[in-house]
Amino acid sequence: MTVRRDARPDLSPALGKLLYPRSIVILGASDNPAKLGGRPVDYLKRFDFPGRILPVNPGREYVQGLPAFREVEEIPGEIDLAFIMLPAGQAADAVRVCGRRGIRAAIVGASGFAETGPEGAALQEELRVAAAEAGVRILGPNCLGMISLASRAVPTFSSALDEDIELTEGPVAFVSQSGAYGSFVFSEAQHLGIGVSYYLNTGNEADLSAAEMLQALAEDPGVGVLLAYVEGVSDGRRLLETARRARELDKPLILVKAGRSAAGARAAASHTAALATDDAVFDGVARQHGIIRVDGAEAMLDAAQMFATGRRARGRRLTTLSVSGGAGALMADAASASGLEVTAWDKTWQEKMAAAIPRYGSPRNPVDLTGSLISDPGILRRALEVATGHPDTDMIAVMLGTADSCADDLIDAIAAASERSDRPVVVTWTGGSGRPRKRLAELGIPCYPDLGRAAAVLGALASFSLRPAASEPARPAGVPGPGRVPLAASAGGRRQLDEYQSTRLIAAYGIPCAESRTAATVAGAAAAFGDLGGGPVAVKILSDQVGHKSDIGGVRLSLRTPGEVEEAAADLLETGGAGLLETGGAGLLVQAMARGDVELIAGIKRDDSFGPVVVAGLGGVFAEVLGDSQAAAAPVDHGTARRMLTSLRGAGIFSAARGKPAVDLDAAADVIVRLSWLAADRPDIAELDVNPLLLDRETGTVTAADCLAVLDGDGDAT
Amino acid sequence: MTVRRDARPDLSPALGKLLYPRSIVILGASDNPAKLGGRPVDYLKRFDFPGRILPVNPGREYVQGLPAFREVEEIPGEIDLAFIMLPAGQAADAVRVCGRRGIRAAIVGASGFAETGPEGAALQEELRVAAAEAGVRILGPNCLGMISLASRAVPTFSSALDEDIELTEGPVAFVSQSGAYGSFVFSEAQHLGIGVSYYLNTGNEADLSAAEMLQALAEDPGVGVLLAYVEGVSDGRRLLETARRARELDKPLILVKAGRSAAGARAAASHTAALATDDAVFDGVARQHGIIRVDGAEAMLDAAQMFATGRRARGRRLTTLSVSGGAGALMADAASASGLEVTAWDKTWQEKMAAAIPRYGSPRNPVDLTGSLISDPGILRRALEVATGHPDTDMIAVMLGTADSCADDLIDAIAAASERSDRPVVVTWTGGSGRPRKRLAELGIPCYPDLGRAAAVLGALASFSLRPAASEPARPAGVPGPGRVPLAASAGGRRQLDEYQSTRLIAAYGIPCAESRTAATVAGAAAAFGDLGGGPVAVKILSDQVGHKSDIGGVRLSLRTPGEVEEAAADLLETGGAGLLETGGAGLLVQAMARGDVELIAGIKRDDSFGPVVVAGLGGVFAEVLGDSQAAAAPVDHGTARRMLTSLRGAGIFSAARGKPAVDLDAAADVIVRLSWLAADRPDIAELDVNPLLLDRETGTVTAADCLAVLDGDGDAT
Repeated sequence: MTVRRDARPDLSPALGKLLYPRSIVILGASDNPAKLGGRPVDYLKRFDFPGRILPVNPGREYVQGLPAFREVEEIPGEIDLAFIMLPAGQAADAVRVCGRRGIRAAIVGASGFAETGPEGAALQEELRVAAAEAGVRILGPNCLGMISLASRAVPTFSSALDEDIELTEGPVAFVSQSGAYGSFVFSEAQHLGIGVSYYLNTGNEADLSAAEMLQALAEDPGVGVLLAYVEGVSDGRRLLETARRARELDKPLILVKAGRSAAGARAAASHTAALATDDAVFDGVARQHGIIRVDGAEAMLDAAQMFATGRRARGRRLTTLSVSGGAGALMADAASASGLEVTAWDKTWQEKMAAAIPRYGSPRNPVDLTGSLISDPGILRRALEVATGHPDTDMIAVMLGTADSCADDLIDAIAAASERSDRPVVVTWTGGSGRPRKRLAELGIPCYPDLGRAAAVLGALASFSLRPAASEPARPAGVPGPGRVPLAASAGGRRQLDEYQSTRLIAAYGIPCAESRTAATVAGAAAAFGDLGGGPVAVKILSDQVGHKSDIGGVRLSLRTPGEVEEAAADLLETGGAGLLETGGAGLLVQAMARGDVELIAGIKRDDSFGPVVVAGLGGVFAEVLGDSQAAAAPVDHGTARRMLTSLRGAGIFSAARGKPAVDLDAAADVIVRLSWLAADRPDIAELDVNPLLLDRETGTVTAADCLAVLDGDGDAT
Repeated sequence: MTVRRDARPDLSPALGKLLYPRSIVILGASDNPAKLGGRPVDYLKRFDFPGRILPVNPGREYVQGLPAFREVEEIPGEIDLAFIMLPAGQAADAVRVCGRRGIRAAIVGASGFAETGPEGAALQEELRVAAAEAGVRILGPNCLGMISLASRAVPTFSSALDEDIELTEGPVAFVSQSGAYGSFVFSEAQHLGIGVSYYLNTGNEADLSAAEMLQALAEDPGVGVLLAYVEGVSDGRRLLETARRARELDKPLILVKAGRSAAGARAAASHTAALATDDAVFDGVARQHGIIRVDGAEAMLDAAQMFATGRRARGRRLTTLSVSGGAGALMADAASASGLEVTAWDKTWQEKMAAAIPRYGSPRNPVDLTGSLISDPGILRRALEVATGHPDTDMIAVMLGTADSCADDLIDAIAAASERSDRPVVVTWTGGSGRPRKRLAELGIPCYPDLGRAAAVLGALASFSLRPAASEPARPAGVPGPGRVPLAASAGGRRQLDEYQSTRLIAAYGIPCAESRTAATVAGAAAAFGDLGGGPVAVKILSDQVGHKSDIGGVRLSLRTPGEVEEAAADLLETGGAGLLETGGAGLLVQAMARGDVELIAGIKRDDSFGPVVVAGLGGVFAEVLGDSQAAAAPVDHGTARRMLTSLRGAGIFSAARGKPAVDLDAAADVIVRLSWLAADRPDIAELDVNPLLLDRETGTVTAADCLAVLDGDGDAT
């Protein structure tokens, strides 16, 4: 990937000055380069910042050899960026001063804000208001700054720059909410030879968020790969927009998020006061938007190394060449686990490969080059010539090890092949001094010490390369606009609709529901039974006070005669009268029994980070045992809804089985799409569950057999 | 762990001479140290083999400066080990010569045997027979030898010794079926500072197998950790015995096996002509015997580093200390995923920790030491003092990064804590030069660049430390001895028993079955219905020619009246007469309907590697959708049977649900135990399935509602 540094994205002026500053003022600059306030000055000097370095220190004439200023106001000329290295209590005032001086961007380094408790939170709010009023965009507080290698601007006190290491530029940008951990990862990347040109730490995010910084960096033509470490996302929709835009630009967003576990979520919350979000929701919306979520920094950097090559896979077919048959077998396992295909070549191509390798080798794929490679590196060269010409090879993995003495010849062969082909080429090199890995990294050829890591990276690359085209969800036919379905006035506070009202609401969105009638008496129930055609019915207690009707014995199923219906109705009315339903206008619902072989649960809810969300999962015993569900930000298009279903762990249940046809997944997806529009249209609905949504194999029908909506707040639905 | 080199295990003389030779003859020794035949001589010299190095080369007086012999016969004195570096066609003869000369152990290096096809297989068989007749135990062929650092015996041509690297001794032994890949892994281990004292490559295993070598090494008092890379196991029971013995000795066996995927199994088969085994069976028996199966070499070495410390965990409670709150949150996630607990400390201990760390830190666990650590390493020292004193801490993880400049102080603090405490301590160090990781490895303190890898290792350590005591399965009451249940004589060839016979067989092993009667006529069926007490029954076609009765409509369920039974019987007899059952004595089975809320499938089969195996999984729709089952080598004890059930992904279904009690897992485990004895007793039964095995929540009963046994071979069951 070519790194273009000439073109700058069309950012807001403040963000442009933050990312590409030509002059940086350091408030609280120290003469001691080891102190936190001294480090930014030291680093800016050491890494040859080409712009003006402007230390402010009221007590000194010079700071680390540079002329110092007593205050910001006395500095002549334009100032792009301020790095405020003052104690928390002085930060808001400093921002005001910066604003008056015409500085549009500032970094606030101090900690002691929201992460420390209510007092700090108040300080942070003061800082936020000061910045907004002063027209200054701020990064931080509780943040160790930024590294922008393209501009050689390093306003940071990160210990990652302590070492004497030559920093490598490249197409990778990294945004981290955690400063220390982000610095470790930046340092690790640099030591691995991964060119990370931007590292930004957003800290407590009083103003600029990780999502907003990623959004800005995505537009940088020099950036081809976005990395992020986050603990919580306050502006989830912006993150999703960023992901959508990055995908459009063919730039992957590779992300680590803490909080998968309860213990991790708790730790994250206490660390950057991160907003708790449902991790399953995060996972779902990330998948929906093509965000490559990985479990840790090593996996993130492994992927970055591959994606930074700019190469994409045309398919999932992997050809592996190995000095070891054992490595070939293990790689086939790892590749399969990562969704890749390692299949034997056809006879013609096997013969071509056989001509390139020793007789004892295997030309099938995995190709076994044999240990003779060590004494004749030409084997690898010839085998790669065949492999790069093979039309059914989408990616190539070369597995080597030790062999320091002939490493250069082997590396040359790989580099030549990689140059000749535009297909992704990865190397695993296990054992030996590690020098070959370093050399390959310098050549921009991804190289890993372990097969499994290489396979995981290739799997992620294939999925990103073959991603479905993004499409804007379109309102399906028969779906009303926002607020077109009147709901009964709410008495105030959070409350639920009864099943009949809930069902009318989703029916208005075109979701097929089991036909039903309300009844207030035994006779009314019998009449409703006749009205529904006399087929088998369910009779249920109807009340907006009862959530789980079956738990209180409020549901009678498969009633086939008027007598059965009357008996059930009498029973349920008595139960209702027996005190359980004293408060609400309890009655009965008589409902035609819906047919179905597969039960889904589909619903909507609101997430603090992402707003309206649609959820779908397997129902019945699967829901209890597996908790198998998928979430997506609403609204969703049909393809997304289908993928939510096919991504379920138990998705096998949708296929044809026991002589019966497959369920109609499109019909089920259509229900999810419609629910997602309901979620988007109706912020007054906090939660809605269709449970079960029945899929019938024979008829291909989808039927909502029960529905419960919970309203949020006291607003009357309009 | 103390490495004891004085005591040698009580091995067979041949294995003792192989592993600890005092004289090594090299047949086909070359004067050129770069050639395969020259390398062993070169390595033995370079690594200061203290015994006699005896090159045989009929054309030279000296080989690499050592006096050479024209033939083995002319060498004086005792010879412990021969390394045969001659072409495949000469190997058998050479072994015969060795045998005559009184050499009891030999390594055969050449390839060109079974891995190349039928011709090579014939050569290998000749070699095997020659060795057996000559009384020589051989390692190989297609094998690159052995490294025994404790004896400084390195009869090998592995390129891992090409480099000038100082080899570290330690308590780790490694056996690999693949030579090249094994060498890479050995080299990687040495570069990581992991002391691997033994590396053996077993190659084609014409005689000595990986399992036998592991068995020998397990007895070496200097060995504390066993590593293995295998592609197929011909003597599975020996591997299990070895695992059992190793566990008894508190030595973990950490194993990588290729062939998880179809592609990997195919590659492994073509590589070392490995026996194909059902990977799910391998996985199950490995778990049963406490083998730590990991996916790749990196994970294996990660674990080796930890286990080599000899420390064990008293529980699963992890305390984490980190310079970065972000790392703490991620570690909590990773630890949870690995089955560890990261829970907040109690108030008293939080106060003690709070006194040791800065005010902005968090004393809860994860403990956030804050970035101030860099300028004050005493924080880590004080925090570790508190943590090592904390009674509810079973393991400690310290997460650091970069900070090369103050690394020594931090490492000293960790080393002091590790010395003070006997609890496992791991470090993650991300970023920076890598020197701190090297230093910690030298100190024997496990250190990883990534949090997730550290968590995985601690999880494996906890599971091994807390393993259930091994117990010898005991024959349960009511289980007959081998061959006590007569079966109808077989007409020859593989055939199945009908349901009635199959059911009698398992009933004889004390497995509760639904009561049933055979019938040949409609009237007989009605009589059987009466005989069974008139409850609901199933009527089924009874034939030893039909495997899946329901697929041909041969099962009628829930019949409640004599009329229904008669109608069904007439129907089925007609179906049976319509040509489907022409060959066998088809009749009817009338069976009381069994009650159950949860369906299991339990069965037995024979594995080529492991012999009789018992399998249990969820039945019904779970079997189809999840393929959720667990296997174990038969017979099994009650605890193993229970763990098979609780390890199922859908094990949640066994718990109390919807107001109904949990199923009786002990009763279900008892059925598995009994089936396992049936498997062990009856080699004539190739396969047997109980499907469904019904578990009833209310009554706690377990009932086999259908059973099908398939006989193997033509032997009459006795």
